[in-house]
Amino acid sequence: MATLSYTPIGRVHSTRKNPTDDFWDHENASIELDPAQFSPEALLGLVDFSHVEVLFHMNQVDPSKVEKSARHPRGNIDWPKVGIFAQRAKNRPNPIGTTVCRIIECAGLTLTLEGLDAVDGSPVIDLKPWVAEFAPRGKTFQPKWISELMEKYWK
Amino acid sequence: MATLSYTPIGRVHSTRKNPTDDFWDHENASIELDPAQFSPEALLGLVDFSHVEVLFHMNQVDPSKVEKSARHPRGNIDWPKVGIFAQRAKNRPNPIGTTVCRIIECAGLTLTLEGLDAVDGSPVIDLKPWVAEFAPRGKTFQPKWISELMEKYWK
Repeated sequence: MATLSYTPIGRVHSTRKNPTDDFWDHENASIELDPAQFSPEALLGLVDFSHVEVLFHMNQVDPSKVEKSARHPRGNIDWPKVGIFAQRAKNRPNPIGTTVCRIIECAGLTLTLEGLDAVDGSPVIDLKPWVAEFAPRGKTFQPKWISELMEKYWK
Repeated sequence: MATLSYTPIGRVHSTRKNPTDDFWDHENASIELDPAQFSPEALLGLVDFSHVEVLFHMNQVDPSKVEKSARHPRGNIDWPKVGIFAQRAKNRPNPIGTTVCRIIECAGLTLTLEGLDAVDGSPVIDLKPWVAEFAPRGKTFQPKWISELMEKYWK
């Protein structure tokens, strides 16, 4: 299939310099749009939304560690072996993160966020406002292992 | 900034052939993983989640229509002029859609979904399980114009 190419729209600034797991709420993060491509107009009205979905490239992923099949999440054999598309792990075929963050401030080309699990310097691919009608519809459920994995993810 | 390149992991099959707005719940959709790259193992355990987040390339976007600044959503002057990153419109710098869909069935390399707003043939970039801990945290709000825009989006 034909390769897809994208130009980053900006970059992440974060107090997290290395791609370690967990405790992301301890970090401060912002996004700066590329001034060569954008003016502050591109963010006009975004602060009228509570949250924004950030698409970012996980540029510190080691290509030799990418999983294309199934594995135990985080190598933990207490959890079942599951497919890479049943996990949100970074070592995936196309290492794009998508995270819904709370908007703190928008000033010029800089967007200050809460809850961004991206390391410093990550290229940003897209920003989309969080819209209630795009939330999962109907009953939601998830397996026990992922709830356990997420226990220390944020705090 | 350096271009980012991704190889699609599969393709969308949908009864929607053209990128028209609204009424997406009238369509049937599935995703087929690329058999040259993946085995059914890559989807192992995904059906233990109720929903999956689909990242897809909106390949029918006309590059000459891409908005990099601000505009009235859908050209409707009754709605305020807002920045492209305060909209989820397809005519955006990097035309990637992210939609949370209900999982109906997973058989071999084929995933049957409900609520996928991607046209037939769209390249799929990634699949991630919907995880409750990644939902927006804290109070959510959005402007009136987007709630109006979404009224006929699904049904």
